[in-house]
Amino acid sequence: MSDLIDTVRHIAKKTDSKILMVVLDGVGGLPLTVNGETELATAITPNLDALARESQLGLVELVGAGITPGSGPGHLSLFGYDPLKYVVGRGALSAVGIGVRLRAGDVAVRGNFASLGKNRIIVDRRAGRPSNEKNAEIVARLRGAIPEIDGTPVEVYTESEHRFVVVFRSQGVDEAGQGLGANISDVDPQVTGVPPHLAVAQDPTSARTAELVNKFVERAEAVLAEEPQVNGVLFRGYSDVPHFPSFADIYQLNAACIASYPMYKGLASLVGMEVLPVEGEEDALEGKVKALTENWAKYDFFYLHIKKTDSTGEDGDFAEKVHKIELFDELLPSLLALQPDVLCIVGDHSTPSKLTSHSWHPVPLLINSRYGRKDLAGRYTEEEAGKGSLGLRRGTDVMPLLMANALKLQKYGA
Amino acid sequence: MSDLIDTVRHIAKKTDSKILMVVLDGVGGLPLTVNGETELATAITPNLDALARESQLGLVELVGAGITPGSGPGHLSLFGYDPLKYVVGRGALSAVGIGVRLRAGDVAVRGNFASLGKNRIIVDRRAGRPSNEKNAEIVARLRGAIPEIDGTPVEVYTESEHRFVVVFRSQGVDEAGQGLGANISDVDPQVTGVPPHLAVAQDPTSARTAELVNKFVERAEAVLAEEPQVNGVLFRGYSDVPHFPSFADIYQLNAACIASYPMYKGLASLVGMEVLPVEGEEDALEGKVKALTENWAKYDFFYLHIKKTDSTGEDGDFAEKVHKIELFDELLPSLLALQPDVLCIVGDHSTPSKLTSHSWHPVPLLINSRYGRKDLAGRYTEEEAGKGSLGLRRGTDVMPLLMANALKLQKYGA
Repeated sequence: MSDLIDTVRHIAKKTDSKILMVVLDGVGGLPLTVNGETELATAITPNLDALARESQLGLVELVGAGITPGSGPGHLSLFGYDPLKYVVGRGALSAVGIGVRLRAGDVAVRGNFASLGKNRIIVDRRAGRPSNEKNAEIVARLRGAIPEIDGTPVEVYTESEHRFVVVFRSQGVDEAGQGLGANISDVDPQVTGVPPHLAVAQDPTSARTAELVNKFVERAEAVLAEEPQVNGVLFRGYSDVPHFPSFADIYQLNAACIASYPMYKGLASLVGMEVLPVEGEEDALEGKVKALTENWAKYDFFYLHIKKTDSTGEDGDFAEKVHKIELFDELLPSLLALQPDVLCIVGDHSTPSKLTSHSWHPVPLLINSRYGRKDLAGRYTEEEAGKGSLGLRRGTDVMPLLMANALKLQKYGA
Repeated sequence: MSDLIDTVRHIAKKTDSKILMVVLDGVGGLPLTVNGETELATAITPNLDALARESQLGLVELVGAGITPGSGPGHLSLFGYDPLKYVVGRGALSAVGIGVRLRAGDVAVRGNFASLGKNRIIVDRRAGRPSNEKNAEIVARLRGAIPEIDGTPVEVYTESEHRFVVVFRSQGVDEAGQGLGANISDVDPQVTGVPPHLAVAQDPTSARTAELVNKFVERAEAVLAEEPQVNGVLFRGYSDVPHFPSFADIYQLNAACIASYPMYKGLASLVGMEVLPVEGEEDALEGKVKALTENWAKYDFFYLHIKKTDSTGEDGDFAEKVHKIELFDELLPSLLALQPDVLCIVGDHSTPSKLTSHSWHPVPLLINSRYGRKDLAGRYTEEEAGKGSLGLRRGTDVMPLLMANALKLQKYGA
């Protein structure tokens, strides 16, 4: 895979046209029997069908042939970033996954609460698996007690049970392109009966980070000294945050994210999108339409994320995935009513009920604009998309195609 | 072209599923008249047709658009190695072509027997084109007389007429990743009337190789001093052997090769496959099925090579190529009886009878697994493959797709 970011950056222009990218998470599927129908083909979708007949269709591979994308790489690809080049480490993904907005130069660290005995000897590496409530209570105390270390802002987030995340905020990336490094050794010795390790920097850029980590450990132990079980912290999995050229810089877009699950808001903020508040629980379809409608005038690019098409696939519930697709079909007229210049419907990966997991199968892509050729797809399904005029493409092609259809790209060369 | 080796290496996992890759050499063809039928479309292939109806089809370009692949690049691409990156030099291909198993760090050299006159003046650069029998006799004498030079094992192989191959075996690649270098000047002056050149190293790594070559020339002339015609050796075309990350390392596969022609066994061994013995002459179809069946339990990946689909194309014999395709069709039920989890049928390049040579035309790809989408191809032909759900792909996509369909790849990223 490779991306067109460096080319697009030089030819993108600001216009009044508006692009709406709808990501139906995990929408691609598989038939349950040979040559049977997928979830999409089984669903009754009159609105999608009508749209497909006036749109261009194709298939998209997000990372590469045979590669099953995680949500991070799948979305980065759709946003135009080569997912083999822009790698988000586990610590950063944990932070992003709970909705933390990371910036280049920051470091995110995965932590475990632990139980320490006499002389700081580790008794339990998971502190007796505290409840999520206990976790949140401890995290709140750490937040209050350690808002910064030597001038570096520190943020502590609860994850679940014994897991938490710490973000050290750099003051941004310096002239040499350097923020906080993340190349430091683990505090977690991964065994009991010994004290926690001191973090040691493996390169000069990470020296300050190691110092911050060690001071955090010391101060956290002081704060938690009277706790019977949750009285220590262990760290492993440090990630610095790669520099993502922002959406605004590459595409000249004023971009907004409408999503309700933390991971997707985190990914959108990583590339510089504005994350809009959404009212309602879980997938909050009505809240999403409301947020989109109310903010329609303010942005020229909207990323709208629908989650349940993926969750039902992960559950292996073919019928329920079909139902969630039909629910989106009911929503579609409210999106069309806004008259986007370019409307894109796509997935970040496939999640066939048959596999109860993400899969490598290409996802159907639909692009509706005034500038499409005759396509004559009858429906938005994998089968029809496979015959579509857009062909089989890589995920990083999607953004340049949307930009072009919105007449936001100048000619390349004279 | 590029390959996914570095990505696949990190996500491949060992499982019990079995992959069978059948390479029908040069299987792609051309119609003899405009819009006529190819060899594949002309052949009567009930078994292939039935398989196609339950499989996924697509077209594969092995090296790139318009590029006609040699057997080496074609196969490397199918095995997942970018053939523009992993270049096997002429000396090494000559060695591989006669079945020599090369290892990283070795150097293979193409030699000609020559006739030398007084003061070592070259009289005939091809030693009067000796018979293959004479060649073999001379090679046997050199083998016996020069088993090693200064501790470096030396192997001499007969090719045909005046051509032979010498392999200098390094003791493997050293800590700095260095084996024997191959950047040395030619011994062959390419004219008569002068003595052979001394080989000169063009870089430090090749100094030892130049010394070995010069000593080989000296000792060969001594051995052949009494020969009336075949009394000198000339060298040009030195190849070091690139380091191929092995199949086992990349794919976590225990891979076996079932082929009867030396070139294909050599290529398979270059990437670390086990080459299984096959009983029978020439294409030895029955011997191949026997080898496959007997070894089915022992490996999780099989590369099975069928040669005659290519040779008949090279001969320009359309009808005979059709016949060889039909012979493979008869064989197919014995392969299906083994119930591979993933069965792939593909070519390493096209060899249209109309061109009497390899060609650049994409080859049809068939993948049969439990995890395919509706495809509805009626036959395994170029035309049907062009409409298939797998689309038009590069050759290096094949292995990741087979691995995915065998559920041997973990998710990429979270």
